Amino acid sequence: MLYGGIEAGGTKFVCAVGDGDGKIIDRIQIPTTVPAETMPKVIQFFSKFELQAVGIGSFGPVDINLDSPTYGMITSTPKTAWRDYPIVQKVEESLGVPVGFHTDVNAAALGEATFGAAKGLDSCLYMTVGTGIGAGAVVHGKLLQGLSHPEMGHIFVRRHPSDTYKGSCPYHQDCLEGLAAGPAIEKRWGKKGNLLKDRAEVWELEGYYLAQALMNYILILSPKKIILGGGVMKQRQIFPYLFEYLKKAWNGYVPLPELTSKIDEYIVPPALEDDAGITGALLLAKQAGWEGTRT
Amino acid sequence: MLYGGIEAGGTKFVCAVGDGDGKIIDRIQIPTTVPAETMPKVIQFFSKFELQAVGIGSFGPVDINLDSPTYGMITSTPKTAWRDYPIVQKVEESLGVPVGFHTDVNAAALGEATFGAAKGLDSCLYMTVGTGIGAGAVVHGKLLQGLSHPEMGHIFVRRHPSDTYKGSCPYHQDCLEGLAAGPAIEKRWGKKGNLLKDRAEVWELEGYYLAQALMNYILILSPKKIILGGGVMKQRQIFPYLFEYLKKAWNGYVPLPELTSKIDEYIVPPALEDDAGITGALLLAKQAGWEGTRT
Ligand SMILES: Nc1ncnc2c1ncn2[C@@H]1O[C@H](COP(=O)(O)OP(=O)(O)O)[C@@H](O)[C@H]1O
Ligand SMILES: Nc1ncnc2c1ncn2[C@@H]1O[C@H](COP(=O)(O)OP(=O)(O)O)[C@@H](O)[C@H]1O
Ligand SMILES: [Zn+2]
Ligand SMILES: [Zn+2]
Repeated sequence: MLYGGIEAGGTKFVCAVGDGDGKIIDRIQIPTTVPAETMPKVIQFFSKFELQAVGIGSFGPVDINLDSPTYGMITSTPKTAWRDYPIVQKVEESLGVPVGFHTDVNAAALGEATFGAAKGLDSCLYMTVGTGIGAGAVVHGKLLQGLSHPEMGHIFVRRHPSDTYKGSCPYHQDCLEGLAAGPAIEKRWGKKGNLLKDRAEVWELEGYYLAQALMNYILILSPKKIILGGGVMKQRQIFPYLFEYLKKAWNGYVPLPELTSKIDEYIVPPALEDDAGITGALLLAKQAGWEGTRT
Repeated sequence: MLYGGIEAGGTKFVCAVGDGDGKIIDRIQIPTTVPAETMPKVIQFFSKFELQAVGIGSFGPVDINLDSPTYGMITSTPKTAWRDYPIVQKVEESLGVPVGFHTDVNAAALGEATFGAAKGLDSCLYMTVGTGIGAGAVVHGKLLQGLSHPEMGHIFVRRHPSDTYKGSCPYHQDCLEGLAAGPAIEKRWGKKGNLLKDRAEVWELEGYYLAQALMNYILILSPKKIILGGGVMKQRQIFPYLFEYLKKAWNGYVPLPELTSKIDEYIVPPALEDDAGITGALLLAKQAGWEGTRT
């Protein structure tokens, strides 16, 4: 059985065909421009295969509420060409197969929980730090979803007293994403993150903000494993700073080895590396294949 | 069938016997002093009944991990007489019935999700603002639990610029609980909360801090209903301040009626009033009766 997966990102769409057991058979990358340009290429790629179902992990916000009239749409995104775009309906109609749909980070969380760093656990949190900051969680073996999907990247953090950068979130200005995503790093320090490798203060401040976020996620969700991916986290030097700030913030409250001696086993990079999201999208396809599509 | 419920609080134990469908048949209150004094009275009360099982919602931190050697204990509590007290084992051995065990706020969340304000929903959050601040959540119809139980009261919030009170949390000083629980109100303003009714600034500041906390809980957990209980929330005048601050913080990000026009239906006092916790404890008993006890 073959499944299709789409990791719909703000800069590129990754499309893959896989066997549903984590093996990827074919893949392609398509730049994210406007739907009329990007989507025909997506459909064309998948048309060559006999697929059981397709799964989509998408940038957001998206409407994943099955009862909603706007289910399956990318909703209030700042990328205006994609606002209110019915991506699920488009794929269903073009390919005639069931379509599974979640946020990109939820897909990545599912990928890591099934085949990656949280394999065998019924709970984990996946956070990406890239152009934006987002996180998805598996709770009791299922993707966390309630009123809407989580938007964990926009939580408020306390500014570092020496940080004068005003923040870049159009909604909240200096929320976590506004202070710690890739674009904030670039604007604060005047260069892209990959060109700031040797500036220890950049990564210490990044660790300071991410530690606050993880502190809140742990206090609220208590995940069994935390996986940190995305472009910014390629700077592995962030991890030790983050561990130190988090241990300090936790301050022995509820003594857990995961927050002390074993912190580097608890908070880890993605085992699937850059394939967490697309692997999760293929798993969403498999689930959609079982459950059938929405009628 | 009769079940026993214990709401084990820092100042009192509420013990009740109920039918498992939300009806309470008998109840008693016992002051929380030391285990050697409090527990025999608890056991004596229940001994008069033929119980199927007992459920306990306890102040914490508690160990609710079934695989742990310290399962069923109240662990690192500042109430030293109760530290490492094996409350589950004590009740199991004394009464010879299965015992269900969770935190007090998780029990209250279960009570409200089953018979209260979140009846019929598979997700909700219950927060208590009293001597401490704690919250429990139902996710996918089950009490949220992961590495440990959530400790949502200790998240970091941003200080109000005019607030000079240093904070009262022994672990984190000015975390949410340190700034906004009952004792913080008393220390900051010099009087107990129930004597500060007419001081609007007290409740506006309280709304300011609680709004930040709810903002984070919503972004991270996306509960379908939020229920606010505990002694401090008896000051219903907090609600309108909280709504205004939360709407302002959310700032239209993901347009949801629950965060705008319907906010007063989304964030509500407990429908079970002061019985949310004990009702939940009785439900924990019912679940323990089905599942049998730990062997
Ligand atoms: N090696 C790196 N070190 C630091 N920052 C990086 C690195 N690679 C990418 N980034 C930053 O991460 C952001 C892109 O995130 P990425 O996860 O690659 O894509 P996206 O979030 O758009 O899917 C950019 O702001 C970029 O500057
Ligand atoms: N009506 C009230 N108005 C304001 N504060 C109150 C009120 N009742 C109790 N409190 C405060 O709440 C705290 C007690 O919380 P409560 O929920 O009653 O018990 P506990 O948290 O100990 O189980 C105390 O700090 C008390 O001053
Ligand atoms: Zn934001
Ligand atoms: Zn604290």
